[in-house]
Amino acid sequence: MIVVKIGGAAGISHDALCADAAALIARGLRLVLVHGGSDATTTLARQLAHEPQFITSPSGHTSRRTDPRTLEIFQMACRGIVNQSLVLALVRQGVRAVGISGVDASLWRGTRKAAIRAIVDGRTRLIRDDYSGTVDHVDPTLINTLLDAGFTPVISPPALSEAREPINVDADRAAARTAAALDAENLLLLSNIPGLLRAFPDESSLIQSVPIERLDEAESLAQGRMKNKVLAAREALLAGVRRVVIGDARADTPISRAFEGAGTVFA
Amino acid sequence: MIVVKIGGAAGISHDALCADAAALIARGLRLVLVHGGSDATTTLARQLAHEPQFITSPSGHTSRRTDPRTLEIFQMACRGIVNQSLVLALVRQGVRAVGISGVDASLWRGTRKAAIRAIVDGRTRLIRDDYSGTVDHVDPTLINTLLDAGFTPVISPPALSEAREPINVDADRAAARTAAALDAENLLLLSNIPGLLRAFPDESSLIQSVPIERLDEAESLAQGRMKNKVLAAREALLAGVRRVVIGDARADTPISRAFEGAGTVFA
Repeated sequence: MIVVKIGGAAGISHDALCADAAALIARGLRLVLVHGGSDATTTLARQLAHEPQFITSPSGHTSRRTDPRTLEIFQMACRGIVNQSLVLALVRQGVRAVGISGVDASLWRGTRKAAIRAIVDGRTRLIRDDYSGTVDHVDPTLINTLLDAGFTPVISPPALSEAREPINVDADRAAARTAAALDAENLLLLSNIPGLLRAFPDESSLIQSVPIERLDEAESLAQGRMKNKVLAAREALLAGVRRVVIGDARADTPISRAFEGAGTVFA
Repeated sequence: MIVVKIGGAAGISHDALCADAAALIARGLRLVLVHGGSDATTTLARQLAHEPQFITSPSGHTSRRTDPRTLEIFQMACRGIVNQSLVLALVRQGVRAVGISGVDASLWRGTRKAAIRAIVDGRTRLIRDDYSGTVDHVDPTLINTLLDAGFTPVISPPALSEAREPINVDADRAAARTAAALDAENLLLLSNIPGLLRAFPDESSLIQSVPIERLDEAESLAQGRMKNKVLAAREALLAGVRRVVIGDARADTPISRAFEGAGTVFA
């Protein structure tokens, strides 16, 4: 059982990824794919003249401002663009892929941030109509039902809040929770970078392995989106996942390569 | 086993529909929901400044012009708006709903119209970059897997063409094919009208029943979107579905009412 999070940045070929996935599934591996929709959301929001906004917390963490309209756009991007594209690419490779979201059958339950503190013009402001949060609980029943019947789940945000609202969640961390709930041995986080870099963006400074006792140091090196990936690696390892690899989605056979240990291996 | 097609026009409450669905599922009925996305596609296309177009065939049949950009918009509307909304409303009622599309696991296989003849300015024109067609074959495996495990499938277009492209298909007719493939006894086609009207739009002229030998007459009375519903009823009956009801989605308990025979019953 392998959980693979696929990033959405430019330069990533869904066709290469899905051909690799098809080969692994044909060899008998149980594969679960997870994706987000950040880049597609930004593109669609601009097309709809709802300019994307990002907010910075007092501690310096940046996240997408998800007002009610952005939540709608986020769902269209995740479900109607990214998920459809991945499922189609897999089906074309002969995989019996099934696209689901975290809302389906209450798969991803999470906590919505009731009020977000954000720095605006140097002052802390409280935002109350934001729909984002984190996944706290994953129900593995639907995923296992699909896998047992020979289907390959492709899981998309949003998650479902306690009040049963859709919420924007980070897909790396949701994938970590999913891997833990499935007792997966491996979590692969693939994006357009070879792994955690000691001197970002110098790709030759790749850190090849991070033992669990050096996670704090790895976190201090991570920048931008890599912060969430290292946090996801930590959460997965602490929840019992044996190995997490942050690897390169741009390789010819990206899933196989990361599975073989190319990238940054957390264990 | 009941297959319910839910229309998307104004005045239809997803909450009332889904509360009714939840009650029926709790009583042990196996329910499969199908929906389209025509109205949501029109709204989203306008928001994206890709003005909706409709084409008329030489025989007078009108359909949505589905150029490549419209196909993208159609998928965002079907999957990211309508399907998400229905699944969420069902989950809020305690139903373990799972939203899938016709592309998932090649559920709905169809034929893309390679070239569409359309009347433009009084002349017949051939359109070659259109992505629409009809569903020819439904694989019931995924639906039965979900139902057997206690999940309720909510099925959305697009379908998958022979060349494995997504195609815009009529959801009424796709629901008819689905009901037949599942050996469903009942197909309920619910929209914002009480049923087939002898004198459209006079709702008091409702035709309460159409025996199979009078289908031709019913077809000749149908106007606009009702044409596809009567055609769907015909296809379902010929494929072995015992009873088709065209009923009112605006009722308090619309699924139960139609199941009890309110509307136009084809048998």
